Amino acid sequence: MTENIEGLFAGTDEFPNPQAQQRLLALVGMEALLDRLVVNAIALLDPMVMCAWSTKVHGDVVPAVTTVADRTPLFVFAGDVGVGKTEVAEVLGQAIATRADVDVTLYPLSLTARGRGAVGEMTTLMTSAFERVSRDFARARTSTGHAASLGVLLIDEADALAQSRELTQMHHEDRAGVNALLRGIDGMRVAQLPVLTILCTNRLSALDPAVQRRAALIEVFERPSAEQRADLLRKLLLGTGMTLPDIDELTLATGPATDRDYGYTYSDLRQRLIPEIVLTAYRSDVPIAAGVAHEVLKRTPPTRPFESIRG
Amino acid sequence: MTENIEGLFAGTDEFPNPQAQQRLLALVGMEALLDRLVVNAIALLDPMVMCAWSTKVHGDVVPAVTTVADRTPLFVFAGDVGVGKTEVAEVLGQAIATRADVDVTLYPLSLTARGRGAVGEMTTLMTSAFERVSRDFARARTSTGHAASLGVLLIDEADALAQSRELTQMHHEDRAGVNALLRGIDGMRVAQLPVLTILCTNRLSALDPAVQRRAALIEVFERPSAEQRADLLRKLLLGTGMTLPDIDELTLATGPATDRDYGYTYSDLRQRLIPEIVLTAYRSDVPIAAGVAHEVLKRTPPTRPFESIRG
Amino acid sequence: MTENIEGLFAGTDEFPNPQAQQRLLALVGMEALLDRLVVNAIALLDPMVMCAWSTKVHGDVVPAVTTVADRTPLFVFAGDVGVGKTEVAEVLGQAIATRADVDVTLYPLSLTARGRGAVGEMTTLMTSAFERVSRDFARARTSTGHAASLGVLLIDEADALAQSRELTQMHHEDRAGVNALLRGIDGMRVAQLPVLTILCTNRLSALDPAVQRRAALIEVFERPSAEQRADLLRKLLLGTGMTLPDIDELTLATGPATDRDYGYTYSDLRQRLIPEIVLTAYRSDVPIAAGVAHEVLKRTPPTRPFESIRG
Amino acid sequence: MTENIEGLFAGTDEFPNPQAQQRLLALVGMEALLDRLVVNAIALLDPMVMCAWSTKVHGDVVPAVTTVADRTPLFVFAGDVGVGKTEVAEVLGQAIATRADVDVTLYPLSLTARGRGAVGEMTTLMTSAFERVSRDFARARTSTGHAASLGVLLIDEADALAQSRELTQMHHEDRAGVNALLRGIDGMRVAQLPVLTILCTNRLSALDPAVQRRAALIEVFERPSAEQRADLLRKLLLGTGMTLPDIDELTLATGPATDRDYGYTYSDLRQRLIPEIVLTAYRSDVPIAAGVAHEVLKRTPPTRPFESIRG
Amino acid sequence: MTENIEGLFAGTDEFPNPQAQQRLLALVGMEALLDRLVVNAIALLDPMVMCAWSTKVHGDVVPAVTTVADRTPLFVFAGDVGVGKTEVAEVLGQAIATRADVDVTLYPLSLTARGRGAVGEMTTLMTSAFERVSRDFARARTSTGHAASLGVLLIDEADALAQSRELTQMHHEDRAGVNALLRGIDGMRVAQLPVLTILCTNRLSALDPAVQRRAALIEVFERPSAEQRADLLRKLLLGTGMTLPDIDELTLATGPATDRDYGYTYSDLRQRLIPEIVLTAYRSDVPIAAGVAHEVLKRTPPTRPFESIRG
Amino acid sequence: MTENIEGLFAGTDEFPNPQAQQRLLALVGMEALLDRLVVNAIALLDPMVMCAWSTKVHGDVVPAVTTVADRTPLFVFAGDVGVGKTEVAEVLGQAIATRADVDVTLYPLSLTARGRGAVGEMTTLMTSAFERVSRDFARARTSTGHAASLGVLLIDEADALAQSRELTQMHHEDRAGVNALLRGIDGMRVAQLPVLTILCTNRLSALDPAVQRRAALIEVFERPSAEQRADLLRKLLLGTGMTLPDIDELTLATGPATDRDYGYTYSDLRQRLIPEIVLTAYRSDVPIAAGVAHEVLKRTPPTRPFESIRG
Repeated sequence: MTENIEGLFAGTDEFPNPQAQQRLLALVGMEALLDRLVVNAIALLDPMVMCAWSTKVHGDVVPAVTTVADRTPLFVFAGDVGVGKTEVAEVLGQAIATRADVDVTLYPLSLTARGRGAVGEMTTLMTSAFERVSRDFARARTSTGHAASLGVLLIDEADALAQSRELTQMHHEDRAGVNALLRGIDGMRVAQLPVLTILCTNRLSALDPAVQRRAALIEVFERPSAEQRADLLRKLLLGTGMTLPDIDELTLATGPATDRDYGYTYSDLRQRLIPEIVLTAYRSDVPIAAGVAHEVLKRTPPTRPFESIRG
Repeated sequence: MTENIEGLFAGTDEFPNPQAQQRLLALVGMEALLDRLVVNAIALLDPMVMCAWSTKVHGDVVPAVTTVADRTPLFVFAGDVGVGKTEVAEVLGQAIATRADVDVTLYPLSLTARGRGAVGEMTTLMTSAFERVSRDFARARTSTGHAASLGVLLIDEADALAQSRELTQMHHEDRAGVNALLRGIDGMRVAQLPVLTILCTNRLSALDPAVQRRAALIEVFERPSAEQRADLLRKLLLGTGMTLPDIDELTLATGPATDRDYGYTYSDLRQRLIPEIVLTAYRSDVPIAAGVAHEVLKRTPPTRPFESIRG
Repeated sequence: MTENIEGLFAGTDEFPNPQAQQRLLALVGMEALLDRLVVNAIALLDPMVMCAWSTKVHGDVVPAVTTVADRTPLFVFAGDVGVGKTEVAEVLGQAIATRADVDVTLYPLSLTARGRGAVGEMTTLMTSAFERVSRDFARARTSTGHAASLGVLLIDEADALAQSRELTQMHHEDRAGVNALLRGIDGMRVAQLPVLTILCTNRLSALDPAVQRRAALIEVFERPSAEQRADLLRKLLLGTGMTLPDIDELTLATGPATDRDYGYTYSDLRQRLIPEIVLTAYRSDVPIAAGVAHEVLKRTPPTRPFESIRG
Repeated sequence: MTENIEGLFAGTDEFPNPQAQQRLLALVGMEALLDRLVVNAIALLDPMVMCAWSTKVHGDVVPAVTTVADRTPLFVFAGDVGVGKTEVAEVLGQAIATRADVDVTLYPLSLTARGRGAVGEMTTLMTSAFERVSRDFARARTSTGHAASLGVLLIDEADALAQSRELTQMHHEDRAGVNALLRGIDGMRVAQLPVLTILCTNRLSALDPAVQRRAALIEVFERPSAEQRADLLRKLLLGTGMTLPDIDELTLATGPATDRDYGYTYSDLRQRLIPEIVLTAYRSDVPIAAGVAHEVLKRTPPTRPFESIRG
Repeated sequence: MTENIEGLFAGTDEFPNPQAQQRLLALVGMEALLDRLVVNAIALLDPMVMCAWSTKVHGDVVPAVTTVADRTPLFVFAGDVGVGKTEVAEVLGQAIATRADVDVTLYPLSLTARGRGAVGEMTTLMTSAFERVSRDFARARTSTGHAASLGVLLIDEADALAQSRELTQMHHEDRAGVNALLRGIDGMRVAQLPVLTILCTNRLSALDPAVQRRAALIEVFERPSAEQRADLLRKLLLGTGMTLPDIDELTLATGPATDRDYGYTYSDLRQRLIPEIVLTAYRSDVPIAAGVAHEVLKRTPPTRPFESIRG
Repeated sequence: MTENIEGLFAGTDEFPNPQAQQRLLALVGMEALLDRLVVNAIALLDPMVMCAWSTKVHGDVVPAVTTVADRTPLFVFAGDVGVGKTEVAEVLGQAIATRADVDVTLYPLSLTARGRGAVGEMTTLMTSAFERVSRDFARARTSTGHAASLGVLLIDEADALAQSRELTQMHHEDRAGVNALLRGIDGMRVAQLPVLTILCTNRLSALDPAVQRRAALIEVFERPSAEQRADLLRKLLLGTGMTLPDIDELTLATGPATDRDYGYTYSDLRQRLIPEIVLTAYRSDVPIAAGVAHEVLKRTPPTRPFESIRG
């Protein structure tokens, strides 16, 4: 990762690159979603592609095709913490770069990790981010409309920012943040820049309707399915003393249970359960095995879904 | 579109123009409403027209006719996001221009996309917008009362602004915005300028009573009817592999269903469902057909109606 | 109307004048109220009149007579929007002028249309208005107590201002506005100026008790009765193709109905229903008749009563 | 009344004076309360009086007597608007002056009529008022403890000020006002000044506990009883065409009724009902009589009790 | 009492002194509590005392003894107004001084009577108070750990200050006050100063948990018991015409009754009931006797318990 | 303890040291937790250790091992006041130092005891603390990744700071504090400094999800179990007149009971119950014995669990 452009982004990322490829391969069970996202990006990069295809399969450019270009290139990724929203957003560029054979640059903006909380700062931050990306891609599209590179502006942990203007008590500063976001998105759409904006949020219901309406795609991420958990656990526990039946049992045990209707998140598995299994085995100086795993499981419950204060 | 007058409007639009004509034709099922709006505009342009007509049909200028001129030329368009409020507001000028044979200028003011959220800014914005339009049309009416051109001031996404002053917690800044709106409207009515003001809002119930009382017309837009959906889908899916029975089935499937009492909005259809169908067909490199459409339909539900915080 | 005294009032009005006389005559079914208000004004103009009368009819100035002079000349007009409060307030001067043969000046102060929402501005506005009127009438009363002219200070749309100080969350600015009002009223009572203050409000229950206590008269305006609707409709539809039975039917149809316990307001009738009937007839180029009226009626429901947020 | 000391008070009043005597005599049914208040004042004026009496009747200064001097000379008058709180407070000085043969000065401070709502102003006002009164009475007590004159500091319409500090949302400014009041009261108690403070409030339950705790007497005023109404009506309707049976009937009609559990307040009777009866009779140029009274009664209901927002 | 040290305290008090001894003796039914408080003070004054005792009775310094010295010398007195919290706090120094034969100084800080409500002032006040007391006792402890004098810092009416930081809406200023309190207490504990801090509050549940946790003793004061009321009434009514059976009856009548589950507070008895009985007897110029008492009792109900807004 | 580094920390602590060893030994029933925490620290100090172990027991560095290094070294200690969170956090360094044979420095930051409540101060404090610790450990890791010393940054009483950004009403200042925390934690993770951050909070549910997600370990501390109470009571009451059966009975009596579902906290036992038993025995000059204990127990109930205002 490149360091910290003007202190605005945590560090940009250029795709393709090998680390991203590895992370991309690790995204078990998200192939279909990634595929859809990549195709969206391709349509954004070169609107002519869609026309050529339509002519090929329908004999003409059908009206439906024009609806694709009319959309705002904004994706909203919603869902609980630890369900993989940010991971997908961060490695999507790799998928696009390899499939469309273009250079992709990720601009990750974490509102909480960047802003210092000063009044108006979030607005400034937002505005600066859009200005920077717009500048970088101002000439990315050729006169024929084809773009040779793509920007992905990732706005992570956007809950604070994109709070619904419906809440009467919202402070002016917050509303200003939402407005800065809307201006940025609208501005890039009007200028037809080859830039995808991805907004990650824990609480879809709190997203301003004006933001939701513009989104070309609203994807709600769920906690990992049994298949996804199995896949992840198999990869992570590879080479340990846990047999496949052991892992299957662990897969089952990390799903919803009788006393809770939710299973483990990706974060729960990757950041708490597996590390704790490793450390527990280490502490006893024994190989990682089913016994250790179940001991740790008991004292490491999944995090509870985070409830919105507005139902 | 002309660019950005003094940074106040997103760009004005002059009618008639061919693009607007096309958009106007696309407004399926809204002919009656448009007709009513156009007649309102005509009465505003030249009060004499109504008198002449009254004399013709009633033998005299009946008292009822005077009530028309006494109204405030303010229309309120209310309804959920994606139901076509803004579209109607934006192309109404075209309908007026062609039917009344006058020049019409649209001044689109999006409060969220313009303001930067500074305290008092919305008030300033509002005031400047009214001043600008008032200046442009100060001499548009001849001494006989006939106006040769019409302005349409569109205040979109007005929810933030026109919040009811009833809410005790309303901040001074918001109230100031409402007051600026009232001043602007009252000022233009007093000066008898040939300018229509259209206010779009998601939440009619939150509109200040003083605003509602002044409105000559309050139109609540609903989600598209089966007929409107059919019409739109037929147009958009023209030339694809979808047969009319396929489209009829899709029309039905995008209406209210057993598990929800609301259907798809225009935005849902135009910005999410159809584009996604296109991209999915493209991805598989097959023509757009019923199979693809139903696959996409399953993962693309309609947006939920946005509920007002006050029931 | 005179324009805009120092930008404080929307324009003062001098009575008697012919336009006001016409508006006064149009106030169907409000004769009794107007009569009472006029008599109040006469008692305010010359306290001696009451004494003379008492001596005549009772043989002496009875104690009851003194209670009249002790009152604060403040009227509160409450009721839903569109029920005629402002209209009565605006033409009351005409009724007084003609009956008492004095000059009456109306000073209309619309808080929403005047203030710009700056903190403290409403207080300043209020204070300036009272000072201006007090100055104008400082010498209006002769040494014998008789006044040759009367001022009517109309504070319209006073909801924002006169919010109850009971609401704990009330901001200082609002409370300051109420206090400025109280000071103004008390000041004029102490100085015994021949000035009536009329306060119009949508929400009587939100009026500060200290304001209510001072009011010499609190009049709650209701939506028009069948008789009042009939009268208005007959006047407005005069000369059209609607017969008296047609109008009677329309009168009935604009009253409360099975699915709503409220009828049409004056605004509903005058600003929405009748104009729309006119425009619809014009659109079809036919005379105004029952058919058109009923078509319009269906799509033009009465406005819902505005509910206070505090029950 | 003396005018406006340094703009702080509405004008002080010196007792005894004839007007006050008349108002005092008009306070029907409040003799017992007045008597108690006068005795309190006497005890405050000269603590030795109590000792002398105790010695006389008990043979010694009993311990109970010391509790009288230990109290804070603060009276709280609570009750609905229009029930006579302010009237009693304003003429109490007359009762004290005549019975104890001392000079009494009333310092009336109306918080709403004085303050302009600026932040901190109420605190300043409060502090200034206490300082002024303290200065005036600094030397009013002789070395033997006897005081030759008494001050009555009346804090009317104190609701805004004395809001309970319990309400978490209370603003700093309000709390500051309460604290200024507490400081003022405590300061005068410590300095043993011959000054009574009377606080009038509509809402006892909202009074800060620290204020309530200090009060030597908390008197809740009720709406007038049948006897009090009869007395007032008889006085006011003296000399008119209403017979005693007519007045008795009116007395009954202005009490609680089947459709409401409250009767008319003093204000309702004195400021609205009787004046309106007078004006109605005047309008018809007939003597005041039962018919007129009942006609007016129907359209002049009593004001509803003002409910605290906190139950 | 010494006057007003630097305007910070209402006046300090030095113990022992005869007035305090009398007030101490008046504290009926609180002997056990006082005893416990005194012993706490003794342990604070000289930790060696506890060790000596432990060695005497247990043969050694048992571990339990060390827990005494580890505590924060903070007492919280909670309970309704008028139940004696402040009285106990104010005369505790006398009890300590006489029993432990040391000099004790009371520093009474009333937050409401001191602060002027300026933002940040309460914090400054708090900080200054702790600094002043810390300075006075900086050298009060000898090198052996024995202290020859003790300070009692009384923070009365602390509700405003010590509001729970749990209340999200708490303003920064209030939180700052709590933090200043915590810093002050922690600072004195670390410096091992011989200073007791006593916090009086009406609402224990609103006390910040961080304050509660530190308290060595949390004492909830109740309204006086029958025994306590009897004792107080006997003392106060000594020498009057009331017999012991009369007083017993009054004791009963001032306890909880069928229509209320609370009895009279100390304030109710001492500041309202007894003085009013005295004044009523005086008014009739008769000795204080049962008849007078019961007459007064009827019109002098006990104050209602003050309910927290948070249940 | 070293004093007060630049006024930022209450005083740092260097481990190992004998006092800490004693406190560590006193942590009854927390051995397993401490063990786990120590192992976490070891993995943080030298990631190679885990690789070596994995190779030894699994024959290779298994993928699971990499998850350990990927974690954010943040521990969250949650639970009621008085349950030992802070104690464990303060002596953990000792456990690490002795087991891993490294120097450990504790940086204790108490937000309430440090900040003065000025707006923005908490953010500054937070930022300074992270900067200071980051500077101290900037070079603590050798080029091979091994660290010779460890820092423990303890953020105690963090409730005020780490409030969930979900609460719409949160003030900007609070949000700024949360953001500063996130920045600090993320910054140290990126720089791979050998620093553990421990956050103590009373209310886990109010912790911002972005904070919770990062935590490598979230430990909820419960009130002491019967075993833990027994152990503590035995230690503290050693050498007194209480027999083991007496202590067992006290253990039982300080657990949950029929009228409450919670037992005594560590604070309740150590700071209130035992000291009060000591003082009571001292007061009677008798040895500590079962009788005294039960007498004290009756008047010293356990503190009620502190309930969050958001359920």
